[in-house]
Amino acid sequence: MNTEIDSVTRRHFLRAITAAGAFTLSESTRAEEPSVHEKAVALLKPGSETIAILLYPGFTALDAIGPHYALSGMAGASVRFIAATTDAVASESGFSVSPHLSFDQCPENIDLLLIPGGMAGTITAMEDEATMAFVKKAAARSKMIGSICTGALILGAAGLIRGYKATSHWQTMDLLPIVGATPVKERVVIDRNLVTCGGVTAGLDMGFTLVRRYRGDLYAKGIQLLAEYDPQPPFPKSGNPDTAEPEVVALLNHMHADYISGWGKKLQNTPGAKKDQ
Amino acid sequence: MNTEIDSVTRRHFLRAITAAGAFTLSESTRAEEPSVHEKAVALLKPGSETIAILLYPGFTALDAIGPHYALSGMAGASVRFIAATTDAVASESGFSVSPHLSFDQCPENIDLLLIPGGMAGTITAMEDEATMAFVKKAAARSKMIGSICTGALILGAAGLIRGYKATSHWQTMDLLPIVGATPVKERVVIDRNLVTCGGVTAGLDMGFTLVRRYRGDLYAKGIQLLAEYDPQPPFPKSGNPDTAEPEVVALLNHMHADYISGWGKKLQNTPGAKKDQ
Repeated sequence: MNTEIDSVTRRHFLRAITAAGAFTLSESTRAEEPSVHEKAVALLKPGSETIAILLYPGFTALDAIGPHYALSGMAGASVRFIAATTDAVASESGFSVSPHLSFDQCPENIDLLLIPGGMAGTITAMEDEATMAFVKKAAARSKMIGSICTGALILGAAGLIRGYKATSHWQTMDLLPIVGATPVKERVVIDRNLVTCGGVTAGLDMGFTLVRRYRGDLYAKGIQLLAEYDPQPPFPKSGNPDTAEPEVVALLNHMHADYISGWGKKLQNTPGAKKDQ
Repeated sequence: MNTEIDSVTRRHFLRAITAAGAFTLSESTRAEEPSVHEKAVALLKPGSETIAILLYPGFTALDAIGPHYALSGMAGASVRFIAATTDAVASESGFSVSPHLSFDQCPENIDLLLIPGGMAGTITAMEDEATMAFVKKAAARSKMIGSICTGALILGAAGLIRGYKATSHWQTMDLLPIVGATPVKERVVIDRNLVTCGGVTAGLDMGFTLVRRYRGDLYAKGIQLLAEYDPQPPFPKSGNPDTAEPEVVALLNHMHADYISGWGKKLQNTPGAKKDQ
């Protein structure tokens, strides 16, 4: 155990597929389940997506780790956490996660760049020149960019979502027009080369949705079943402000009033808020 | 940024509640929303739950971090990752997470001990004397114990679920009787002082369910709304083997045959498999 990270993406599915390869050879004479063999062999073909997920001090861990789970299940994909340095990054959630790469080690060509959200840390990230310079540079190298939760505000501050349909945490939807985006009330929004999703747990839905996009239905269904993603929230109506009790919505809005106003003021002073960007 | 972890549990809700405290004072004369103020003040009362989540090499990160998200939203609760040492622990997911405490630093009294699952790492953990000794010692100090996904096998190997109703990842349900537990096909199963849940993502449902148990409905609804937990899986039927296409179920069973058989053989040789334990 140490702070170094194995540079090879490892996940259930990847290992399972390797195991299935051996299995296929030894059991190839079995006639009773040819379709399973065929499908396993098809899934054995690894892809080569390069996916970068930004970590910054104060990021919400689940925002990053939800999509990471789904995406790193794609055999052959390289899914890397990238931060200013390779030192462990303290999340907003009270523990640290080790990045795989520093900003300087960012790959030349990226298929997907994802930005997680946070609370105070998201504002600090927007104020940090090195972080914003990295986001712009990495986005320019990426076929697709995206965000989870309030990560959309970082993309917005960098001028990367102007003219796009986008979503973010329900409490920050009204801030998206400050940086030129059109808020869309959907769990996952894909507009051309931009993918955004709602708050925190929406990153899971985004992750499985992106696996379907990269690897097709069968692969995505397999990873979703592996993750046993058959959610049963204890309060089915309390995950969305439109269905939650008004008292709960009011409570959270009351508690977060300072944050929401702080984010708005910060965004108004970013390059992303200027129409000539 | 360093590998040391802030020992104070920090989460959206905790900070929000602190903000709400100041807010309440400055706006206490507003008459238009007394119920919000009253509720905020009620939520300001912090609890003091001590929650320990085991990390071991090869744990599935989302198993640990899903419940951590919900539980660490409880103001005043101490939610700690505990591992053999305080060195970062490599997850099965391809990145490392820093524990807060080493086994030696385990608190004397624990409200809840949670064990995440994994793949090969779970078998290694069952074979590791120090890990199993810690699990037994910590469980003896805990009011409640629980697991996510294949973490139930570790509790089972330690002889801690004999005579209990329990659940685990759908592919390992049939292994639970080896260690004396009765498998129950539910997302989250609470039997006396044992809480278990299904595979990987079931840890989120468990987390919010436990927040309700510790802090009541309003608090749990607030955290669920903060997390925007209104899940919309891209394949609504592919999260459960009973509703997924038989082809997808067969594919995963085919790919994981070696693991399932390996877990079963390992479990049969653990103290938990002996009825006189």
